[in-house]
Amino acid sequence: MKSTWSRRHVLGLEDLSAAEITTILDEAARFKEMARHGEARHSLLKGVTICNLFFEPSTRTKTSFNLAARRLGADTVDFTAAASSLSKGETFIDTARNIEAMGVDHMVVRHSTSGTPFLLTKHLGTGVVNAGDGTHEHPTQGLLDLFTIREQRGRIEGLTVALVGDILHSRVARSNIWGLKKLGAKVIVCGPATLIPAEIRQLGVEVSYRLDEILEQTDVINLLRIQFERQRGAFFPSIYEYAQFYGMTSERIARAKSDVLILAPGPINRGVELTPDVADGPHSVILDQVTNGLFVRMATLYLMQLAREQALTST
Amino acid sequence: MKSTWSRRHVLGLEDLSAAEITTILDEAARFKEMARHGEARHSLLKGVTICNLFFEPSTRTKTSFNLAARRLGADTVDFTAAASSLSKGETFIDTARNIEAMGVDHMVVRHSTSGTPFLLTKHLGTGVVNAGDGTHEHPTQGLLDLFTIREQRGRIEGLTVALVGDILHSRVARSNIWGLKKLGAKVIVCGPATLIPAEIRQLGVEVSYRLDEILEQTDVINLLRIQFERQRGAFFPSIYEYAQFYGMTSERIARAKSDVLILAPGPINRGVELTPDVADGPHSVILDQVTNGLFVRMATLYLMQLAREQALTST
Amino acid sequence: MKSTWSRRHVLGLEDLSAAEITTILDEAARFKEMARHGEARHSLLKGVTICNLFFEPSTRTKTSFNLAARRLGADTVDFTAAASSLSKGETFIDTARNIEAMGVDHMVVRHSTSGTPFLLTKHLGTGVVNAGDGTHEHPTQGLLDLFTIREQRGRIEGLTVALVGDILHSRVARSNIWGLKKLGAKVIVCGPATLIPAEIRQLGVEVSYRLDEILEQTDVINLLRIQFERQRGAFFPSIYEYAQFYGMTSERIARAKSDVLILAPGPINRGVELTPDVADGPHSVILDQVTNGLFVRMATLYLMQLAREQALTST
Repeated sequence: MKSTWSRRHVLGLEDLSAAEITTILDEAARFKEMARHGEARHSLLKGVTICNLFFEPSTRTKTSFNLAARRLGADTVDFTAAASSLSKGETFIDTARNIEAMGVDHMVVRHSTSGTPFLLTKHLGTGVVNAGDGTHEHPTQGLLDLFTIREQRGRIEGLTVALVGDILHSRVARSNIWGLKKLGAKVIVCGPATLIPAEIRQLGVEVSYRLDEILEQTDVINLLRIQFERQRGAFFPSIYEYAQFYGMTSERIARAKSDVLILAPGPINRGVELTPDVADGPHSVILDQVTNGLFVRMATLYLMQLAREQALTST
Repeated sequence: MKSTWSRRHVLGLEDLSAAEITTILDEAARFKEMARHGEARHSLLKGVTICNLFFEPSTRTKTSFNLAARRLGADTVDFTAAASSLSKGETFIDTARNIEAMGVDHMVVRHSTSGTPFLLTKHLGTGVVNAGDGTHEHPTQGLLDLFTIREQRGRIEGLTVALVGDILHSRVARSNIWGLKKLGAKVIVCGPATLIPAEIRQLGVEVSYRLDEILEQTDVINLLRIQFERQRGAFFPSIYEYAQFYGMTSERIARAKSDVLILAPGPINRGVELTPDVADGPHSVILDQVTNGLFVRMATLYLMQLAREQALTST
Repeated sequence: MKSTWSRRHVLGLEDLSAAEITTILDEAARFKEMARHGEARHSLLKGVTICNLFFEPSTRTKTSFNLAARRLGADTVDFTAAASSLSKGETFIDTARNIEAMGVDHMVVRHSTSGTPFLLTKHLGTGVVNAGDGTHEHPTQGLLDLFTIREQRGRIEGLTVALVGDILHSRVARSNIWGLKKLGAKVIVCGPATLIPAEIRQLGVEVSYRLDEILEQTDVINLLRIQFERQRGAFFPSIYEYAQFYGMTSERIARAKSDVLILAPGPINRGVELTPDVADGPHSVILDQVTNGLFVRMATLYLMQLAREQALTST
């Protein structure tokens, strides 16, 4: 048992200590190193069953968790809202408890309502990992962003990281803020005033409404996705204006630090959050993020299972 | 080869003898006992391919069969009606024969038309297990109900079991009646007169239209689901009235036998077939049923494969 | 490494030499022979991840590729267009590159646009196999047709093969023409003039508009499916007339060569391309085609992986 880890659930980076976050990142780095040497498959979770309980459409996160689980030797089962018992009048909690009763050990949960994964921990004996809940958190996305920055720069502490775009609706932003602050980075959130909640300053971040004024001081720029499908209101005048003020272009790259890192949680809207030449250019680590997501999720599931085994043994 | 088992298909409990049913229950108990000692995974069906051929929406039964197959080491493949070749004009039998030709050994079949699994056995060389056909049977649900009762009470024989609710549309009721009668239980079906077919008495069951009049004599009450999505006609005045007359409440529990067992095939409608305090109370074995479903399906698939191997060898 | 094989992608039979096609067929025959002796599962692709990237509905081809991959010990992951990141505004290429970044080694691609698999090879480092692209090619279907003919007749060379039906829209026809010509068969395409493109003669095939006039000289008749869902225009007066002129009946079988082979890529429309008695009769090898599809796809994936390993080693 890792001495710094005893959590059966991973619900958000707000809950984790710097030491716990570092433990996940270190385990992920170990898995990545082993994969580099041809040891991509493990049997650490052999005999363990992991259920993907997704109540929002998602392919990439679900696929990443699936591949991570299988690389650890776990069995996986998908349970999506469409065509499920929920349509027959069953409550959400009953659905989850039924799945648990089939012998599931861990649930990977995505839901449009903030707090759903937490709620599940009160009713289930399984481990629960949050794969995105409402506008709350998306901790494994935050972890893979941290991993990618640390891998590229060797550290997080002391770096200045800008989160650009729709801060209001972004669970990715929230997980990034908690993780980055805990590991000692300076965080600037940047976007239209309508998309930055006033309370955000309480998390210890700086606020900017103009990308151009923070370009020169940032080491890392994380370009959040404009979630067209999520925005019912009109938070900015037009996509054109958004791209003008907050889109990353090669012209802006030229004015940024020479080694600035460009991250984006994806899926990206080319020509909106960033131009194609930036997305495919030398500063972009977008595909590294995806690759690292696999290892971060392997580490998370592995540590959760260690905690589960310890909890079962000590009972 | 179990001397009491030679069936390549499991289509309904009507077809099985008491000895055959007991063989499945005993094998299931053995698998459950092994799981309790940490031997949850087996390789008894290694190299065997099982196809879930579902033409009605289902998640829990399909997931249960999937997990059961994989715990035995089988490969599984799902084939659902939506987006399949059926939409291209192919007949149902041709679809099934094509899947068989890909090297499938057993088919788990759910279909809205009664008799479909039987029809398939006439055209395929694979094993066929009925996962619910129309209003006919749902044998593995019946088996898991039997298993749960036997596990809790130590026997089936001599017990009085009430099936409450929509008997008319319920394949679960039919499988329960056959299984319970064969193993020596007394069966009472109870519900609104509109939901109890007149011919049901021919199966040797008693009929009651008032739950309150049978409460004191029943050892087990199985609360069938009101299938809102299935009922086109208006078989009872209102949900409110149904719950008044046939819903299980703590008040009714107080008048029942002190050790009465409450079963429900699920998904349950809380506040209709039973109140939340009953669903989550000490008499309820609803989640045990789900857990036992896994072991009953493992036993069923395992015995079917034994029979298949014997049939292939003797050819 | 097979000396005759160095391709990392299989995009169409037009690209393959006769020697390469024969290599695939020989490997497939080897896998089939091993399966006959109980060695159905292999670990040749253990640790390899294969993604089914399907942008057109398909069940049988996808299932066949899935089973083939798993019989070789590979991990598989399905990625379908519905509910994917594409609906969030991501480009097709970005979606594919993201999947690759998760550690996928080979992509099985189906798309309604001709040339999509080729396009992907320009942007990905994975192997790419075409599982049907627009009206271009469906090489593994062509290969399984070749395999089935060779298995039944012992050779391809010198045989006369008729492709009957909708040549205009058929990627199956195109893959068959390339494969059959390369291996030395004589090919006749036969159908309504509206469904035979004028340029088809440039591929070295004969053209006939009347099935009855070619019946006596053909060794193999491959009955292409009338793709009701694909045909927006009215290419022939009625289904009744099509069946009259081009449908295979027992009456036509009686006038054909006594050992004529009847193939159909399926799903078949009984009563249109062929009558039920022909579909289920002694000349039909339709289900053999499906079975052989599994082995041909195993061979294709295995050879692609060999080439991938060699490419990675030599880098």
